[in-house]
Amino acid sequence: MNTILIFGAGKSATYLIDYLLKTAAQKNREIVIADLSQSLAEEKIKGNPCGKAVAIDLKNQEQRRNLIANASIVISMLPAHLHPIIAKDCLALEKHFFTASYESEELNAFRDEIEKKELLFLNECGLDPGIDHMSAMKIIDAAHAKGYTIQSFKSFTGGLMAPGSDNNPWKYKFTWNPRNVVLAGQGTAKYLDHKEYKYIPYHKLFERFEKIDLGDYGIFEGYANRDSLGYREVYKLQKISTLLRGTLRKEGFCNAWNVFIQLGMTDDSYLVDFDTPQGTKRAFLNSFLPFDKYQSIEQKLTNFLPWIDEGIMEKIAYLGLFSNEPLPLKHGSPAAILQAILEPKWQLQDSDKDLIVMQHIFEIKSPRGIQTLKSSLVEEGLNQTYTAMAKTVGLPLAIAADLFLDGKVLSRGLLRPTVQELYEPILHQLEQHGIIFHEDTLD
Amino acid sequence: MNTILIFGAGKSATYLIDYLLKTAAQKNREIVIADLSQSLAEEKIKGNPCGKAVAIDLKNQEQRRNLIANASIVISMLPAHLHPIIAKDCLALEKHFFTASYESEELNAFRDEIEKKELLFLNECGLDPGIDHMSAMKIIDAAHAKGYTIQSFKSFTGGLMAPGSDNNPWKYKFTWNPRNVVLAGQGTAKYLDHKEYKYIPYHKLFERFEKIDLGDYGIFEGYANRDSLGYREVYKLQKISTLLRGTLRKEGFCNAWNVFIQLGMTDDSYLVDFDTPQGTKRAFLNSFLPFDKYQSIEQKLTNFLPWIDEGIMEKIAYLGLFSNEPLPLKHGSPAAILQAILEPKWQLQDSDKDLIVMQHIFEIKSPRGIQTLKSSLVEEGLNQTYTAMAKTVGLPLAIAADLFLDGKVLSRGLLRPTVQELYEPILHQLEQHGIIFHEDTLD
Repeated sequence: MNTILIFGAGKSATYLIDYLLKTAAQKNREIVIADLSQSLAEEKIKGNPCGKAVAIDLKNQEQRRNLIANASIVISMLPAHLHPIIAKDCLALEKHFFTASYESEELNAFRDEIEKKELLFLNECGLDPGIDHMSAMKIIDAAHAKGYTIQSFKSFTGGLMAPGSDNNPWKYKFTWNPRNVVLAGQGTAKYLDHKEYKYIPYHKLFERFEKIDLGDYGIFEGYANRDSLGYREVYKLQKISTLLRGTLRKEGFCNAWNVFIQLGMTDDSYLVDFDTPQGTKRAFLNSFLPFDKYQSIEQKLTNFLPWIDEGIMEKIAYLGLFSNEPLPLKHGSPAAILQAILEPKWQLQDSDKDLIVMQHIFEIKSPRGIQTLKSSLVEEGLNQTYTAMAKTVGLPLAIAADLFLDGKVLSRGLLRPTVQELYEPILHQLEQHGIIFHEDTLD
Repeated sequence: MNTILIFGAGKSATYLIDYLLKTAAQKNREIVIADLSQSLAEEKIKGNPCGKAVAIDLKNQEQRRNLIANASIVISMLPAHLHPIIAKDCLALEKHFFTASYESEELNAFRDEIEKKELLFLNECGLDPGIDHMSAMKIIDAAHAKGYTIQSFKSFTGGLMAPGSDNNPWKYKFTWNPRNVVLAGQGTAKYLDHKEYKYIPYHKLFERFEKIDLGDYGIFEGYANRDSLGYREVYKLQKISTLLRGTLRKEGFCNAWNVFIQLGMTDDSYLVDFDTPQGTKRAFLNSFLPFDKYQSIEQKLTNFLPWIDEGIMEKIAYLGLFSNEPLPLKHGSPAAILQAILEPKWQLQDSDKDLIVMQHIFEIKSPRGIQTLKSSLVEEGLNQTYTAMAKTVGLPLAIAADLFLDGKVLSRGLLRPTVQELYEPILHQLEQHGIIFHEDTLD
């Protein structure tokens, strides 16, 4: 009997656990779910006799190691900064280790030892990173097999709200860690455009977005991710001219969010104190605007950023920033206070459905000329438990684990799912679950 | 006999050493100048028998401590980050310690011990910080003595070029550490305006300058320093409504410098590599602009920042950024490369004279109403050795040391020259050397 040990029973693990439990009896597997909350883990098992819930304190090394020692393979759905703790145990106990998170420097330091011990440490096997890599590599490998050259590759992904649930002026709610959303894009975006290295500082990032057309789902705005340059290696596109990975928001979001960046309201590097009776949202906004006794805050804002239009003013007003409502957090960094203002306004409602959108745009050179090839994915969530985010993050990982235990994955080492023996069967299985890319045919 | 030990014989120590050597024989003092370069130290002594040059390796603790053990008082003109090393020795050997640098957190940690040992550790006794504190406190104390209230205090200082030597389109050359000039203002500026806390993010700092009129010397631009809020305590102005400290540049500088900030060219947080035959200044500029095959770099720049005018274009062209000149540094952070481009262009020429400008603007409330009181200092350098910068930084420190050894300073502890027994005689002596504030009379 094989034992699959899963750390973390949160929202994003729902589909993963369901998928693995479904065939567990037939494949003679035990699925152990370890979470801080035993009841949360039990809830996810739904009485399946192949499932076992365990309450875990990650700091308890003995308990952690005992669990891992009994597993055939370990999957971590915990926050990414916790992965190295588990990874180190897996390495010591010679267990395979799978996550949906970015391959970190800490894991990279283990590369040689992973190879020497003939283990598989598979990362970036979720949505983004994950499905983006797999669907892109399928096209890239096919083009290379024909002897074609990929000249340009742009790829955008967004975790958003389905039509009908995008019912606020921002057309956005938090389906992911709010703090990460507030701080998104800090640092410098680096990409390649027609063989020119391009650098976008944070304060220009939300001005330099591209419009992305997703047909019936409308127009989206894509802004550049922090580092696209490293993906030349990952995608075996060392000689590509244009390479950009980006994040999608619905139309109108980027210019409005840029107001907060321009004001300095997303700064997380210093503390402010509004713990007075005058600690209102309006006063918070005013602290980023020059003093002017003859002008209202609204006037000062539109003088300060003359490109602000009615749509942007409506979005800012929706958050209550022109109101005298007390601040929900009075002491913290500007970013933390902004997050506290956003959380109740961008909170998911019971009836809300989320939406995952992804689009790859390739320019491929063949003897017949240059073909533009688009490949798009749109996935709507069912409800607040069965979200599109949980499905697209959890299923690839579940399928990879299943394939691995079925003996169908021979690769070993520190890997992403960019190898054919992984991406081909995973994409095929995802299609069976309705996760289907709509793409142009490669000529 | 008293021994004054001076660490550092660089440019900014010239006036300091001259001043102290002049009365050394009469006052029976020895002036020991310790520098990495013995010949530089000897040069500064000019054969005066009361002077002694010592070559020092700061890492040599024994040599350092022997020197300090024999001193009555220690003055450090070294870069500020080296002060704590000397300060620690002074504390252990119970020696008084003077600098022209900001009171640092490291020194603050010594506060209790300095007091217990009844030592004087005097910092911020140069120009800015230094003369600014002294000249401001004179006015503040006089107003408080009359029972008046200071409602507003803005203070600006700049180290610039004298008329005739400001002969490039930027009207600016490096009279101070070039790296600090390139990185100036990074972080968030914090000040108080009509009782409102105000925060300016770096990317808006050079847009939000004030015009400062210095009569015959023309119009200057003042942008806010990083933290003005802490000076409420320093100046005993806890209830003030408006408090801003800032830095002066000549007219036209701020908008042009803002181009580099907007492009992201002053970023010191990541490395870029232009080590190719195409590694030109033009390519460097282009890497911060979007790709557009139909537009020149000049067109892209003015599209990207539509407020760029002819004067700004001239300033950028002067640096060669539109040219195909090879980059003087091909690998480094954008800020380091920008600095390497600026250094030859903003280099002082033999005939150049520098200029120090300072202006305080007070609003003082008395029973008769509100008086605006301006106090201004303009000081031109004589040549490249006897600069206004060296004079205004070095003389206050020299005078303070002289007064101290004459037994005229009774204060002890970790101090700034904001106490009357320091600022009054120092300002008086500075006047004897031509450093004179022109100010309105307090009504």
